[in-house]
Amino acid sequence: MFRTIEWMDDANNVRLVDQTKLPLKTEHLIISSHKRMAQAIKTMEIRGAPAIGAAAGMGMALAALESGASTKNELLEFLEHAADTLNTRPTAVNLTWATTRMLNVARAAEGDPNKIVQLLISEAKEIAEEDVRMCRDIGENALRYIKPDFTIQTICNAGSLATVHLGTVGAVVRVAHERYSGRIRVYAAETRPRQQGAKLTVFEMMEDNIDTTLITDGMIGTVFKEGRVDCCVVGADRILRTGHVTNKIGTYTMAITAKYHDIPFYVAAPMSTIDWDTDPENLVIEERNPDEIRVINGTPITVPTAKVYNPAFDTTPPELVTAIITDKGVVELPDEDKMRGLRDC
Amino acid sequence: MFRTIEWMDDANNVRLVDQTKLPLKTEHLIISSHKRMAQAIKTMEIRGAPAIGAAAGMGMALAALESGASTKNELLEFLEHAADTLNTRPTAVNLTWATTRMLNVARAAEGDPNKIVQLLISEAKEIAEEDVRMCRDIGENALRYIKPDFTIQTICNAGSLATVHLGTVGAVVRVAHERYSGRIRVYAAETRPRQQGAKLTVFEMMEDNIDTTLITDGMIGTVFKEGRVDCCVVGADRILRTGHVTNKIGTYTMAITAKYHDIPFYVAAPMSTIDWDTDPENLVIEERNPDEIRVINGTPITVPTAKVYNPAFDTTPPELVTAIITDKGVVELPDEDKMRGLRDC
Repeated sequence: MFRTIEWMDDANNVRLVDQTKLPLKTEHLIISSHKRMAQAIKTMEIRGAPAIGAAAGMGMALAALESGASTKNELLEFLEHAADTLNTRPTAVNLTWATTRMLNVARAAEGDPNKIVQLLISEAKEIAEEDVRMCRDIGENALRYIKPDFTIQTICNAGSLATVHLGTVGAVVRVAHERYSGRIRVYAAETRPRQQGAKLTVFEMMEDNIDTTLITDGMIGTVFKEGRVDCCVVGADRILRTGHVTNKIGTYTMAITAKYHDIPFYVAAPMSTIDWDTDPENLVIEERNPDEIRVINGTPITVPTAKVYNPAFDTTPPELVTAIITDKGVVELPDEDKMRGLRDC
Repeated sequence: MFRTIEWMDDANNVRLVDQTKLPLKTEHLIISSHKRMAQAIKTMEIRGAPAIGAAAGMGMALAALESGASTKNELLEFLEHAADTLNTRPTAVNLTWATTRMLNVARAAEGDPNKIVQLLISEAKEIAEEDVRMCRDIGENALRYIKPDFTIQTICNAGSLATVHLGTVGAVVRVAHERYSGRIRVYAAETRPRQQGAKLTVFEMMEDNIDTTLITDGMIGTVFKEGRVDCCVVGADRILRTGHVTNKIGTYTMAITAKYHDIPFYVAAPMSTIDWDTDPENLVIEERNPDEIRVINGTPITVPTAKVYNPAFDTTPPELVTAIITDKGVVELPDEDKMRGLRDC
């Protein structure tokens, strides 16, 4: 199965998918120095918060291998410089979280530097595996809803490419695909303006040999009416304690259309996505650059001065959500009591 | 106001918008020979059934001017050749309809050739004006629903560019805009895959100084929820006697989403769009080339071998339609009895 980033034990280096080339070219980069990893993070050859955390952890392990240190102090000094080098994107909290975690492991370790290097490699792999496990737990928890021969409607990309492996919605699809011997299909909505469905979801599903059909966003009504899909599974950028789900623009329209056709509408996201503080009426939706709509691949598709409304996300109210599926468990027909119940269980 | 094609009385030639250059360049062609008009029709510098009919009529008038005939017989012979030259698109019924109508006028006319030439010019202008009047009648009939300061949600392009002037949905917008001193605004849905909303509707509304905002198809839920539009007005490729409306893909999803928000959903189309024979269960929806979805402006937006579902149209059932607005009158909450009532009144 497709992995966004992976530690290669045989060569002690890192293999990652160059996301700047997708979806037209699948090129893997082999990275064997922390400086090259810093560059990969900076130029977004790897992107997505969990994936970046794993990249930073592996970058620190590479630095440990590079150091050639003969004492623990030499090693620590080298790693502190490496952490600075890897922190190339100031707003990526996973980046500093991962480099700090690696430094703490090195500081706490006893024994000769070679042993500490091995500990650091293990820790980097563990950071990646924790993300994979979280995704897998979401996928396992979804199995109560996803049956063999289901076709799943998705929007945007909540797949492997933002995580180390599997993704969130990606895990729902992949775990079922694995469990049901390939008897799972996907309909991917293009997701204008940025077309992550067409660019990323179609790509990674095809990489994993999952039967995937691309449609444009306006086709969902026809796809639902014709009985082409059994349920929708969407990701979330933020879930409120009330069960309101903020996700990529187009999700709300899909939820309304699913309700009209009595098609179940599931949200798959980790517990860390739940915002326990914000009230629905205080949600602010970011408006993005009009050229995301007006220009595709560098060519205008409308009058270049056209007025545009470009909200990046929308919010689906809980009455349109059949269930929220997290790594910890599920909440059906979500409301504030049930959400708190999941948190406190 | 913006006209797709127009007879210029001062110069006795035809001015039309070169539709192959839209929306990035607004170039008008001045056409003063029937051979050049034939070329314009063939290369789709002008397109859309009603607009092509007008172009053919004006092409015949140009031929009459070119003929230099000194007898009626010479003129008729020249016109018959011209009609053959103009019939460049075999499936365009409006083309032969218009050239035949012009030939019949010439055949029936008495008097010297110069007088007949003037008659033909008048007839060509009349063909165009009939189309304008039909559109205007739709716009007038819509005024009972469209109030000052309304914002109208559209999809695809049912505007001037397929007709001589105004369009169908275009007429609803323009007649109200004219009647209410400009107090009408438009939200235009992009309409993937072919983006006629972005390419054509935005262009022609901006040409007429109508305040227009472009959105992607998935944004309609947010636009409706935020109260940004007062009603939807869509065109129709075919309306069944039951009130089912076949229109550009995305219309059905928009109708469902409008219903959920209690936003009126109007269909604007001429009586000639109504198909009195076909049953809803026998409707066949054309599937088009997958590359309409996979490629935009020559550049792939997904894996080039991605599987695609690309229905060109969808069908909105009558229970989602607030009213059908035709040139003859309106039908609210359409059903078969009311549709027949409109026909027979």
